[in-house]
Amino acid sequence: MKLNEIGEFGFIKSFENKFDAFIKGSDKGIGDDCAIITKNNDEVFVATTDLLIEDIHFLKSEISAKELGYKSLAVNLSDIAAMGAKPLYSFLSIGIPADTDVDFLDGFMEGYYELSNKYQIPLMGGDTTKSSDKLVINVLAMGECEKSNVKMRSMAKDGDVVCVSGNLGDSGAGLKVLLENLERTEINKFLVNRHHLPEPRIKEGDWLSKQVSVHAMMDISDGISSDLKHILNKSGKQAEINLEKLPLSNELKTASEINNWDAFSVATSGGEDYELLFTMSASDFDGISKDFEKEFSKPIYCIGRIFEGEEKINFMLNGELVDSNSMGFDHFAK
Amino acid sequence: MKLNEIGEFGFIKSFENKFDAFIKGSDKGIGDDCAIITKNNDEVFVATTDLLIEDIHFLKSEISAKELGYKSLAVNLSDIAAMGAKPLYSFLSIGIPADTDVDFLDGFMEGYYELSNKYQIPLMGGDTTKSSDKLVINVLAMGECEKSNVKMRSMAKDGDVVCVSGNLGDSGAGLKVLLENLERTEINKFLVNRHHLPEPRIKEGDWLSKQVSVHAMMDISDGISSDLKHILNKSGKQAEINLEKLPLSNELKTASEINNWDAFSVATSGGEDYELLFTMSASDFDGISKDFEKEFSKPIYCIGRIFEGEEKINFMLNGELVDSNSMGFDHFAK
Repeated sequence: MKLNEIGEFGFIKSFENKFDAFIKGSDKGIGDDCAIITKNNDEVFVATTDLLIEDIHFLKSEISAKELGYKSLAVNLSDIAAMGAKPLYSFLSIGIPADTDVDFLDGFMEGYYELSNKYQIPLMGGDTTKSSDKLVINVLAMGECEKSNVKMRSMAKDGDVVCVSGNLGDSGAGLKVLLENLERTEINKFLVNRHHLPEPRIKEGDWLSKQVSVHAMMDISDGISSDLKHILNKSGKQAEINLEKLPLSNELKTASEINNWDAFSVATSGGEDYELLFTMSASDFDGISKDFEKEFSKPIYCIGRIFEGEEKINFMLNGELVDSNSMGFDHFAK
Repeated sequence: MKLNEIGEFGFIKSFENKFDAFIKGSDKGIGDDCAIITKNNDEVFVATTDLLIEDIHFLKSEISAKELGYKSLAVNLSDIAAMGAKPLYSFLSIGIPADTDVDFLDGFMEGYYELSNKYQIPLMGGDTTKSSDKLVINVLAMGECEKSNVKMRSMAKDGDVVCVSGNLGDSGAGLKVLLENLERTEINKFLVNRHHLPEPRIKEGDWLSKQVSVHAMMDISDGISSDLKHILNKSGKQAEINLEKLPLSNELKTASEINNWDAFSVATSGGEDYELLFTMSASDFDGISKDFEKEFSKPIYCIGRIFEGEEKINFMLNGELVDSNSMGFDHFAK
């Protein structure tokens, strides 16, 4: 049997619980945005890692070296933010084909440094080696958080509202621009830029971690239709998502009209938004929302609700249940 | 300019000090076997990472899946041991071509688990993803150590003796067997086995870290002629190595005779021995050596001495200086 018959998820399933017996104290391993490593009674370290391989995760012809360096770190910092932690350290392993331009590598490190500098994160170590033909990048990031503030996927409660920290679908639309090789209009450039230079929501995650009424949290890397399921699975809950409440940029709406894309489909399953997806007590939403807007000059968005029940998402549009199996929500396409 | 014109080391040089300003307190970044992360006033975490790429670091036709899984973790645990730390956690990123046999992956995880189980190290997280054509493996290992026991490359002192924890050159000879495609006699199988299944010296490193008279320590991954230079560079010292004192296995000696290899050359620059290389007060060698042998039922070997002076290694044979630039020590070949 080959990997493509069982998929990466099938492979992970074969070993993910095998190491549980070795986990000590309140440490947590596989299963959330980050692992949790006990520092002392009050604080924890969190750690996450991402492997990016040329032609699988990026095309050297499309992304600039500087953007790639920035993004390689950004996707990891987003996982740190999703735990409610502050980033502290990074480790970078890079496998480089022998004929790679030194200018490209310098550009890569420039982008990596730019984001490191923004949060004053030292590159603590790594491994630099030859690669046969593809550029290979592995980043591991560590952060720290007060133990009582850590937000896990398992923490959603019955009656919580489901919230996101910003627009959904821009990055997914940017990827469609690349894959469909569309003309680089101003709007399309905006979308591609959102795909190549995601902004990890570090400060927002840190702020939200301190709010007791915020419960589960994760980052949106695959799109909410897939990511929210992880929260539901770990929390043993069901969710209702109100599609008309999804925050969509004018750029996504316009590009969807022009290209005949289903904006809801792009927003729910486009992926790589790297916004925060979290649940919180419904009764505290107004207060938290006002305080968040005061702090960050931008709103948070309530897009649905958590219920008791089997793990599934009911997508609703203006009060009517939508068959989410009808791929792509074609009937919403304008 | 291309990477192969400046080399990986040239690339690392271009950024290794750029992040120093972000390092806080007594943390240490790039430059030793592991980074050092402060846990509290008395203890530190250490962390190291290694990237292995198919056809660069291993040949799938030569190493079994189980050996590869074992070795991927072992080379990282060796770096943990070299700091005098005990291993605690690992993270595994793996990029897998779609047509990889599930049996191969299961074998890989079996080997990885076997070594994890030996030291009760949980796999805390990672990333599993598709790769275009080559198998890609990145492991990051973390360990912990009392702060006062950490052994760094910079700690060698004038007058120290240079020691190693076991035989040198077996792994390098095993690689020669593979590259020269030699018949798998019992001896050659032994050597290949030493190349594929290195034993990280965890317990030895932990024990040595508690000896105040042990100063600098690192693991032997490239061979002492290259690795010892890192200690000399960081400590600002010179060394004399007495070739006749190098511990060589009977298998290496016999294979060298049969194949007309220079055993000293294989032992000093073959690499991947993953034994510990350390320096200690000359006056304490006899006592420590006796205690070590009592603890581990095997000796440590004194192979030379540290002096003040410019960073270089003087290789001596029976009291006579050897020109180490005469590559391969051809005049010692039997």
